[in-house]
Amino acid sequence: MALITETSLRARLAGGLPDPFPLAADDRLTPAAADFLKSRGISLLRLASGESSPAGDSVQVLPADIPVGVSNRHIHLSPEHVEALFGPGYRLTPMKELSQKGQFAARETVTLIGPKGMLTGVRVLGPARGASQAEISRTDGFALGIHPPVRLSGDIAGTPGVTVAGEKGVIVMQEGLIVARNHVHMSPEDAQKYGVQNGDSLIVQSLGERKVLFAGVIVRVHPNYSLDLHLDTDEANAASLKTGDAVRLVGRNGEIRGALRGQP
Amino acid sequence: MALITETSLRARLAGGLPDPFPLAADDRLTPAAADFLKSRGISLLRLASGESSPAGDSVQVLPADIPVGVSNRHIHLSPEHVEALFGPGYRLTPMKELSQKGQFAARETVTLIGPKGMLTGVRVLGPARGASQAEISRTDGFALGIHPPVRLSGDIAGTPGVTVAGEKGVIVMQEGLIVARNHVHMSPEDAQKYGVQNGDSLIVQSLGERKVLFAGVIVRVHPNYSLDLHLDTDEANAASLKTGDAVRLVGRNGEIRGALRGQP
Repeated sequence: MALITETSLRARLAGGLPDPFPLAADDRLTPAAADFLKSRGISLLRLASGESSPAGDSVQVLPADIPVGVSNRHIHLSPEHVEALFGPGYRLTPMKELSQKGQFAARETVTLIGPKGMLTGVRVLGPARGASQAEISRTDGFALGIHPPVRLSGDIAGTPGVTVAGEKGVIVMQEGLIVARNHVHMSPEDAQKYGVQNGDSLIVQSLGERKVLFAGVIVRVHPNYSLDLHLDTDEANAASLKTGDAVRLVGRNGEIRGALRGQP
Repeated sequence: MALITETSLRARLAGGLPDPFPLAADDRLTPAAADFLKSRGISLLRLASGESSPAGDSVQVLPADIPVGVSNRHIHLSPEHVEALFGPGYRLTPMKELSQKGQFAARETVTLIGPKGMLTGVRVLGPARGASQAEISRTDGFALGIHPPVRLSGDIAGTPGVTVAGEKGVIVMQEGLIVARNHVHMSPEDAQKYGVQNGDSLIVQSLGERKVLFAGVIVRVHPNYSLDLHLDTDEANAASLKTGDAVRLVGRNGEIRGALRGQP
């Protein structure tokens, strides 16, 4: 817990005070500090929910929880690769909408083949797009015998390739096998609510039986994006998280504020 | 970064000051604060290496890195279960010494069988001990169709059982299937070096391409213990860690000191 005083705020004034001003759940403001911020039109942002604010406290309490979406291994295919794997003129069949608008899990699956083994039933995501990209976990990499780097989607230059088998054909991707870097999608409204910007690096904490923090979670802001922290199965299992669980925003750009929640 | 003043140290005096006194790499002591500690015979412990201390600074810089040991799925067997699985009078065959004195990986392996599938080639660790206990990852739990809780070794009351097949027999364990809770083993000398105690809960950070922090890592101190952070394969893969890598000690008992290393 930190006690935030007017003096400490004045000392930070030269470097600029953030608006909204973030507070951990058990941070306390002295009355003079609260007046200091109020007189400058700076609102307060509580960085953790689940704890009631002190009686008579006019601090605005906002949830700092972000829903989790766990991504199992999957593949995005170029239109040419869809035809090479499933036949000339073939179009993917949407099976289930994904949390991001316009994206779907297709009925189609493929097999990924590496020097040590293969992964069957790998879901194709649609719609078809520019370059093919397969996203696997590090655990999957041991099964295949290929160890791709951790990359954001689309950043596939210099990544390893993989052999892909479909119902009607086989292709050899020259590159495009990655372990997905965790990231959070949000709308401009959500970004404002959490006090973060596109490209920010967040620190989030799991709240269950395994206390794990993911640092360096990149924020992607777009009007079409639904609020979702994308983790792969290794990350989800290491933190005992599943789709629909929530993590707590505890820091940003390398700085954690105050004590961790629910510790030790 | 925190500036540690004589005043702040005096305020903590009633609660007792730790010796050595832990400092994050970018914490600074005022000259008066340094004298205050020195006059009481309290030494300083820098909690992060890799950064040179300021010129003329007499602070003792100690490494805060802890080596990682990754545990794949394995089973400990009672003497009775060794005989039930491998035959009357059977003794396990040591194949490889483990980092903890007297422990070994045996030549023998078993198959774990659950409602959804099985795990073959599960290594038996020796020597045989009181109660059988199988340790799997959460990922393994999906393969078996059994989802055990996260527990420290030995804490198996109320955990699920599993069917185990060996060369000469099959047993049904009524309990003892767990996901191992991460923990760090250290000698009393190491505990002193890191400024921690048996039962403390540490926060450690991975230093590679995935920035992950494990909080709530329990310290186990024993003269026979070698310094080792025990992670399972999910945790290791989520943090891009392998046996022999190191993590950095960044906090203790729910408190992180200063900014994270190497962020964002």
